[in-house]
Amino acid sequence: MTTTLTSYLSGKWVAGQGNKTALYNPATEEVVAEASTGGVDFAAAVSYARTEGVKSLHGLTFAGRAEVLKRAAQVINDHREDLIKLGIINAGNTRSDAKFDIDGAAATLNFYAELAAKLGETRVLADGDGTALGRSARLYGQHVWTPRAGVAVHINAFNFPAWGMAEKLAVAIAAGMPVITKPATSTALMAHRIAELWVEAKVFPAGAFSFVCGNVGDLLNHLSGQDVLAFTGSGDTAATLRKTESLVRHNVHVNVEADSLNSALLGPDATEGTETLNMFLTDVAKEISQKTGQKCTAVRRIYVPAAQLNSIRDALVERLKEVRVGNPAEDKVTMGPLATANQLRDIRAGIDRLAKVAEVALGGSKPVEGHAKGYFVTPTLFVHRQPKADASDVVNAHEVFGPVATLMPYSNNAELVALVSAGGGGLVSSVYSDDKAFLAEVVGGIAPFHGRVTISGEKVAGQTISPGMALPGLLHGGPGRAGGGEELGGARGMSLYMQRVALQGPRPWVEQFAGVKPASAPAAT
Amino acid sequence: MTTTLTSYLSGKWVAGQGNKTALYNPATEEVVAEASTGGVDFAAAVSYARTEGVKSLHGLTFAGRAEVLKRAAQVINDHREDLIKLGIINAGNTRSDAKFDIDGAAATLNFYAELAAKLGETRVLADGDGTALGRSARLYGQHVWTPRAGVAVHINAFNFPAWGMAEKLAVAIAAGMPVITKPATSTALMAHRIAELWVEAKVFPAGAFSFVCGNVGDLLNHLSGQDVLAFTGSGDTAATLRKTESLVRHNVHVNVEADSLNSALLGPDATEGTETLNMFLTDVAKEISQKTGQKCTAVRRIYVPAAQLNSIRDALVERLKEVRVGNPAEDKVTMGPLATANQLRDIRAGIDRLAKVAEVALGGSKPVEGHAKGYFVTPTLFVHRQPKADASDVVNAHEVFGPVATLMPYSNNAELVALVSAGGGGLVSSVYSDDKAFLAEVVGGIAPFHGRVTISGEKVAGQTISPGMALPGLLHGGPGRAGGGEELGGARGMSLYMQRVALQGPRPWVEQFAGVKPASAPAAT
Repeated sequence: MTTTLTSYLSGKWVAGQGNKTALYNPATEEVVAEASTGGVDFAAAVSYARTEGVKSLHGLTFAGRAEVLKRAAQVINDHREDLIKLGIINAGNTRSDAKFDIDGAAATLNFYAELAAKLGETRVLADGDGTALGRSARLYGQHVWTPRAGVAVHINAFNFPAWGMAEKLAVAIAAGMPVITKPATSTALMAHRIAELWVEAKVFPAGAFSFVCGNVGDLLNHLSGQDVLAFTGSGDTAATLRKTESLVRHNVHVNVEADSLNSALLGPDATEGTETLNMFLTDVAKEISQKTGQKCTAVRRIYVPAAQLNSIRDALVERLKEVRVGNPAEDKVTMGPLATANQLRDIRAGIDRLAKVAEVALGGSKPVEGHAKGYFVTPTLFVHRQPKADASDVVNAHEVFGPVATLMPYSNNAELVALVSAGGGGLVSSVYSDDKAFLAEVVGGIAPFHGRVTISGEKVAGQTISPGMALPGLLHGGPGRAGGGEELGGARGMSLYMQRVALQGPRPWVEQFAGVKPASAPAAT
Repeated sequence: MTTTLTSYLSGKWVAGQGNKTALYNPATEEVVAEASTGGVDFAAAVSYARTEGVKSLHGLTFAGRAEVLKRAAQVINDHREDLIKLGIINAGNTRSDAKFDIDGAAATLNFYAELAAKLGETRVLADGDGTALGRSARLYGQHVWTPRAGVAVHINAFNFPAWGMAEKLAVAIAAGMPVITKPATSTALMAHRIAELWVEAKVFPAGAFSFVCGNVGDLLNHLSGQDVLAFTGSGDTAATLRKTESLVRHNVHVNVEADSLNSALLGPDATEGTETLNMFLTDVAKEISQKTGQKCTAVRRIYVPAAQLNSIRDALVERLKEVRVGNPAEDKVTMGPLATANQLRDIRAGIDRLAKVAEVALGGSKPVEGHAKGYFVTPTLFVHRQPKADASDVVNAHEVFGPVATLMPYSNNAELVALVSAGGGGLVSSVYSDDKAFLAEVVGGIAPFHGRVTISGEKVAGQTISPGMALPGLLHGGPGRAGGGEELGGARGMSLYMQRVALQGPRPWVEQFAGVKPASAPAAT
């Protein structure tokens, strides 16, 4: 009998009614579980989290919440091997892909545990310095952050069932908001197991953690002005969510992380034989194939000096040819299938769209030989010799969310900035150069269009982190097409879950409330 | 002949075609001007601001933008008397009301001029400390703020034609974004004159300032991911704007400042004869009548200990009876008319809604005697003896945007927090008490629901600033019903107009770009 995954709401596991959605093994197309939220009482679940969860978490100091997050990370680490297996059979992960997801989850929980521990035995955070408002110093202004008195709903993407859930949750719990989290149903097996383990281990205080396995139903209709929605997924879904009447009407805080045509830029100085060129090739090849290209931060657009276009095409093709596509349960396979049948259809269609303007250097949309079953695609590299710096060029308008990237030439710095910016806003751009003038002009030019820019060169050779890796201490998000949101970034990400309040009143009282000590003497009152 | 107000777009004054909207003197119902934007090319205006304005302002350092803002303030100060007259004949302002608006505008421009001057000869702001990312200290992460490469559209409310425009503009220009600003047409005379004066004096560099006088037309349809919309006005209009396809599709950064059921809270210690009670009465009476109650920060809900309900009602009635309603062009008038016929209709309807649950202590919805013409209403105080802590109570659900407030009793701290919070999120709550236990519990409880909380007591007697005054150094905005936005607050408000970017790369380069000096030694590279 197929396992039916349940949801954890209002402090108990509940099964949905009616039609169930099947979860598949994307390498074999076998059903591995099913899920439904039909008939589930989301109104009660929101109300429970908003009362019990808020009471629990507002009652804890940052240091207290740190302990919660530390336990959450420990539970994941304790069950790492079991979770890896679930990634392989439900998410198309290679063992390495699954570890990337699971270890990323635990590391992010631990990072925020440490951050919250440092914030200490307080519930309110001072924001910047205070300021005298009147003629005397007695009337004082000071901003503070205080947790919102609502619930954080997290809707995650299919590509990182563990990390995606942990990343949003770590920040919200640290800030003091209860979480209702929903993984994408198609790859929910790993997230569901983590939720089970957390509930069994009593990691979270009452109401602080709820888990939705299946359709989101009418959950969002119950949100109001103290609640938060954080979404990762497609721009189309994001647009629909943004227009939800309850969210619009109550000005619910919405954070979106959507499509992103991330770019890798090679400087004119990084010629044949340089260490910087080598770093570029290594990163780009990895970003194309890791997790079968299903990372929101994966490189989609590659820009190189026009004169190097062909030699870099050849070098990338050579590296990508080493990728072994197959069922990740088998040894030696280095790239698994796409996560779902829908993704396979979309990626094939996307490859065909790109093929209309660009030449195929490797791969393509044809079925992968030797795989009658499974959602397989081969690493695909395009060369697009006449890119345009606007959205009329498909390479700037359509994200193909698989192991697919397009290599393009540029002639000068201004053109390069225009081409990259034409992507309409991205999560990350990676720049490879040791030329300071090039870096200053190009990084300065593309910065407004990105949430993160990585700079790689000889000075950090052997020490860089692949640009597609979201780091808990640095922002993850980007403007425009990328959703306009901000996640992670240490305490920065916590602002989504906290209200910033200006306090205006007698200095001693204000400073005491904010936890700020007066500079000259201990608070007298 | 009636003056026709024009718009300043794409660097020139343009007249709209077709039907014009009349601007009235709300005390006499005489037409004072008319305006139209029919046929105006907003696509070209956005494109011009986005190219020329971005080039101009990104080219200036913060210090350079400070000079622009200083000149903008100076122009307003130089024409103060003329502008006051326009407030009297088109906005229903008393001389005092008009000065409040105009001086608020100049002060905010000067505040941001000083702030930008302090930020100095740079174009990028470091955000917090950097952090080592790898095993060595060479790979470094640092967040920076950089101005968005788009245009900021400002849609302002009718109540502060000068201050509303200047407040948003000061922050955007300081941050480095060109502005297209639109006052509410009904009271646009003063804003239009300021725009004329700024253009005559060549205050702004090319493309940095555009002015829309009349309907917004299809302006918003041309916005994209690098652009910003900041709106002040009704929650209904805000909800419509939020759903605009272009804004949703491109994740345009939207800041909303909407309805707010601001509250004043009297502590149980502030009994008869205390200085704190006196401050409370003075502030509340002022907040009800100043600008005929047409301030987004005006007090709408007043909470006092149950035992003091009647005595405070009497004291407030006594103060409000001193208000002299009339044409503000006449001497001795202390409260002018509402700004428009629509406002008069809405306020009368709102008074009638409140009258269904509360008793009238003063005023009401009837026409004001002796005024056959003009949009007059009298100061109106309700007493609502059984308030409910949810939105089923009209006092928590409907903002009456005029000189109207409701006095209510509370029995204990928890009830008070619940009653105040039931407003669903506000701009400001003012708390009057010297009781530390009361303040800690009540301010802590209501903080998540507000953008600003003022605390008044004997220690700051004679020094406080009326709670309805938005201060440039403190946040102006609030969650939920209040729009979920953040304006002003010093540099905090500038984040709407800047992209926060995480830089990840070689430490010396990253620190040089961010303008951060290494702690140990000068940057070697």
